[in-house]
Amino acid sequence: DLGCCVLMNGFYFSAQLLYEEWANYSVFYKYQPIGLVRKYFGEKIGLYFAWLGLYTQMLILASLVGVIVFLYGCATVNDNIPSMEICHPKNNITMCPLCDRVCSYWKLSTSCGTARASYLFDNPATVFFSIFMALWAAMFMEHWKRKQMQLNYEWDLTGLEDKEVSDSKLTQHTIHNNNTKQTSGRHRLPAYVTNVVMMLLMIGVTFAVVFGVILYRISTQAALYMSSSPTSRSHIQLTVKTTAAIINLVIILILDEVYGAVARWLTVLEAPKNEQSFEEKLIFKTFILKFVNAFTPIFYTAFIRGRLVGRPGQYLYVFESYRAEECAHGACLMELCIQLSIIMLGKQLIQNNLFEIGIPKFKKLIRYLRSKQGSFIEEERKKKLHRYESDHFLEPFAGLVPEYMEMIIQFGFVTLFVASFPLAPLFALLNNIIEIRLDAKKFVTELRRPVATRAKDIGIWYSILRGVALVAVIINAFVISFTSDFIPRMVYQYMYSPDGSLHGFVNHTLSYFNVSHFEHGKETMDPLHLGYPVEVCRYKDYREPPWSPSPYEISKEFWAVLAVRLAFVIVFQNVVLLMNEVVDWLIPDIPKDISLQIHKENTLLVDLVMKEDRDKTRVPERGASSGTKKTYRNNNN
Amino acid sequence: DLGCCVLMNGFYFSAQLLYEEWANYSVFYKYQPIGLVRKYFGEKIGLYFAWLGLYTQMLILASLVGVIVFLYGCATVNDNIPSMEICHPKNNITMCPLCDRVCSYWKLSTSCGTARASYLFDNPATVFFSIFMALWAAMFMEHWKRKQMQLNYEWDLTGLEDKEVSDSKLTQHTIHNNNTKQTSGRHRLPAYVTNVVMMLLMIGVTFAVVFGVILYRISTQAALYMSSSPTSRSHIQLTVKTTAAIINLVIILILDEVYGAVARWLTVLEAPKNEQSFEEKLIFKTFILKFVNAFTPIFYTAFIRGRLVGRPGQYLYVFESYRAEECAHGACLMELCIQLSIIMLGKQLIQNNLFEIGIPKFKKLIRYLRSKQGSFIEEERKKKLHRYESDHFLEPFAGLVPEYMEMIIQFGFVTLFVASFPLAPLFALLNNIIEIRLDAKKFVTELRRPVATRAKDIGIWYSILRGVALVAVIINAFVISFTSDFIPRMVYQYMYSPDGSLHGFVNHTLSYFNVSHFEHGKETMDPLHLGYPVEVCRYKDYREPPWSPSPYEISKEFWAVLAVRLAFVIVFQNVVLLMNEVVDWLIPDIPKDISLQIHKENTLLVDLVMKEDRDKTRVPERGASSGTKKTYRNNNN
Repeated sequence: DLGCCVLMNGFYFSAQLLYEEWANYSVFYKYQPIGLVRKYFGEKIGLYFAWLGLYTQMLILASLVGVIVFLYGCATVNDNIPSMEICHPKNNITMCPLCDRVCSYWKLSTSCGTARASYLFDNPATVFFSIFMALWAAMFMEHWKRKQMQLNYEWDLTGLEDKEVSDSKLTQHTIHNNNTKQTSGRHRLPAYVTNVVMMLLMIGVTFAVVFGVILYRISTQAALYMSSSPTSRSHIQLTVKTTAAIINLVIILILDEVYGAVARWLTVLEAPKNEQSFEEKLIFKTFILKFVNAFTPIFYTAFIRGRLVGRPGQYLYVFESYRAEECAHGACLMELCIQLSIIMLGKQLIQNNLFEIGIPKFKKLIRYLRSKQGSFIEEERKKKLHRYESDHFLEPFAGLVPEYMEMIIQFGFVTLFVASFPLAPLFALLNNIIEIRLDAKKFVTELRRPVATRAKDIGIWYSILRGVALVAVIINAFVISFTSDFIPRMVYQYMYSPDGSLHGFVNHTLSYFNVSHFEHGKETMDPLHLGYPVEVCRYKDYREPPWSPSPYEISKEFWAVLAVRLAFVIVFQNVVLLMNEVVDWLIPDIPKDISLQIHKENTLLVDLVMKEDRDKTRVPERGASSGTKKTYRNNNN
Repeated sequence: DLGCCVLMNGFYFSAQLLYEEWANYSVFYKYQPIGLVRKYFGEKIGLYFAWLGLYTQMLILASLVGVIVFLYGCATVNDNIPSMEICHPKNNITMCPLCDRVCSYWKLSTSCGTARASYLFDNPATVFFSIFMALWAAMFMEHWKRKQMQLNYEWDLTGLEDKEVSDSKLTQHTIHNNNTKQTSGRHRLPAYVTNVVMMLLMIGVTFAVVFGVILYRISTQAALYMSSSPTSRSHIQLTVKTTAAIINLVIILILDEVYGAVARWLTVLEAPKNEQSFEEKLIFKTFILKFVNAFTPIFYTAFIRGRLVGRPGQYLYVFESYRAEECAHGACLMELCIQLSIIMLGKQLIQNNLFEIGIPKFKKLIRYLRSKQGSFIEEERKKKLHRYESDHFLEPFAGLVPEYMEMIIQFGFVTLFVASFPLAPLFALLNNIIEIRLDAKKFVTELRRPVATRAKDIGIWYSILRGVALVAVIINAFVISFTSDFIPRMVYQYMYSPDGSLHGFVNHTLSYFNVSHFEHGKETMDPLHLGYPVEVCRYKDYREPPWSPSPYEISKEFWAVLAVRLAFVIVFQNVVLLMNEVVDWLIPDIPKDISLQIHKENTLLVDLVMKEDRDKTRVPERGASSGTKKTYRNNNN
């Protein structure tokens, strides 16, 4: 009994130490006391915090480079020839109307601000940065392998087999499944089918919601154009975009919660064989759903928006009345950046801070109020309770899945579309510095102390990370070559420019349209808006001019630019994958000092075994018990 | 002494059994007795033969599908519209001369045979086959992982660490390096630099040799055109190609031997730290050199030949007098196939059969003749020698590197350019059925029995295999989209064809040339060769006609086809890589029965340890000795 008490006190001492040295915002600049965390919470949670720590540490480098890239954009914005050409007051390019009937012709120079702002995100440094971030992701994963190896060694898990870990668990899900073991075989099939159908349905819901938001944006914009006075039109864009982004964000947050529940329900339905399999299936499903949920609107902005708009005189219409969305002039990448930052920051602020801090506080408040309703005697009794008894009133531990999931989705924001948003790593870093201490605080003070679980690695999360990093390479290749104007600029400079500079690039990207070719009833109502009659207006596309033998057909330049874009994707993807392999090969998986140490221990062990052999005449072949190992390590140091 | 004798006899009994059941052509259809091989030769050689066996077994499937694909080509050759159009007697297309001055205009219908033959290798089934082969390679590697796991389990290597294997070796190279240990640090740099420079130099030699052969081909062809009578010209192509291919082959074979020696020399120079590192570095260097040597001429044929020829009136010349090589009309893929089959079959026949059978026989003969020169008494004494003494007169064992290398290069032939040569797996299969027994015979009868070495896996060879399989995906993507006419046909069918069929495809791929635009001195000397005056001739390229505003410039069709080609490469590569991941995920690395068995043993072991614990009060934590394991397995079965 006394021993138990000492043990208890030891644990509360650990908790106190953890609270002071770890679960505290004032120590944010310090390394985490991972050894202590592992001692108190077990290997699994220890690994999570070690992983989060390494990720945050690696983010420092990424955000530093990101900030430099962004500053480079700011510093060179005045030297950018295309935006200078757009902003030049003598620039007389007359553009075609942006909507049917109510909009009129406009001067390209009015989009000067957008052009300058879009250069901040669409400059040559962007290409460098996305290559850097791909290598960064590869380096992060290699370093994690090393760190994991090191922790395995320090925590004496090197001999631990995966099987041992999973077999030692027999919790509620497994018991539940033992009861429903009859549902195997023949009864499995319907569960699988339900799973697939439900997953597809949920993804369909996401697509429908995104489409709904797009429709809202298009129709509101059209309605506002129609009704408002011309003077207030400049505010329309901003209003519509802001409300649409907020709606988008709110829906993502709601669906995130729904999808978490659906994934759990589907996994229970599937009735996996053991706890490990249950967790893996749950993680996989949740990841797919949340990933699709978070990235569909961004994917739309990056690759679909502004591509399928048709051309003047033959626009594409949604529901026969609304013209498909266009990006602001040449600023698809900037729109992507805005969308990305709103979703990323909104998710982080609301989910992490509001949900993670607010809701536990709220629940605590409710429990407190309830306890007040109870009799005073009850309360008095509680005060006299042991710490471990009062701890029972805390929230139960719900597993590490939500914590990891949040970080993986963030990793997605940091790597997937990083070409368009070099500040993403910085925001992630700021979030994570808070996140570590927040999680620590939650684990130490607000949750019941979880049962310690052994684990050798972060399991399926590593595969998911690897998958995200691989997808990131191809997505960044497409963002650079298709969303940004990098390739058209390059093609113009090396194939069409008379003097090898970007002078004339803006003119080159604009096609001609003869205004008499507008469909009947679609022409503008205010043709003299600019003060002079317009015969030919311009629009951003590579098409033949009205006076060519095949007017408005896709031009040779379009195909040339497309070919170069695709070639860039191939080169980018393969070069980055090759560099990843090189990084993988350069950074050994086992740190050198540890591999030496292991070797030393093995040699000593062999000596020991041989000595015992001589002593006892019993012949154990290679008896590598971790107990002996430990003894020898201590002797060694 | 008696024990030793029994042991000896046991081994010779094994050798006898191996000779009968394994090193014998008459048992080619049987599985190899891998257990016996491992017992007699050790794990490392056992693994080699297990790997070779699995590879050969997997080749059966590949060659079956390859033969079916080839037969599909044969069966549908008469339904192929483009070759029908070329062969049609009414086809009146006049082609531009194939060489300057001495050649004249020619009718496209004369290349009817080539067109039909080229269809055999360039049909839609080819695309299917190269996807299949990429998956086949992934499946092969997954199955090998399983097989290796199974063998590890059966041979009780599961507990063996990599370090143990490499540390147990201390042979001549390591000793040599211990002597030269002073050369580390400062002295290492020159060795590295020499290495890199020499490797680049050797690769440069390969390129120079290939370029030399190309020059030979171009210049001989030109000379023969010049001198010979018009009637014998049809034989010229054949003569030149055959001699060039033979020269190519001979040079490859010679350089292969040279490169093997150079790689060994360079590795000794680099002075690696231990035997394993020595072997890995040697393998890596040898592989790079031999790979470049074997595939450079094929790479040239696939991707460079026929691309940089210029156009009529503005041909590209090598050394200002020879026109760059073209493929026969639309048959680049067929030329690739011919080149590939000559090098692959020639290498296999000469290197494997001549070198591997002939040279040992020859050496034996020399030894035999020498021993005859010795006195009869000597010979008499030899006859009375023990078997193990006479065995000393055999060739020493030179390591497995050449055996593996041969197979890896063959694996390259089977996967890298398989899109152009669906019969490659069949030839590889036939070769390997002989190869297994040949190697077996060599190991059992012609080499000194090597010192048995433990090994857990095939080491660096697996990484090289994986690398070759990855490179194969991208090379096949490029072969299909750039060397074959698959994409131009598709583009024509879906974008230009009036009726959605391939009718008119041949005409679409040929550009127009006004013969008055030939450079002065380059026009044909025999303009009336076809019996009528020619004003416009045709050539295979996508260029503007002479009557367009920009004559002979690259046309819009060219860019469109190029864009589709590049898009195909992206789609092909990513789809195949995704399917590889799926295969990797579907086939578990550890066979189910073995993972169950291991689990069972672990449980029993824990029980045993706990029992011993109670008995002895000594506390071993997790003592997993393979000795105990073995006992328990026996009890278990």
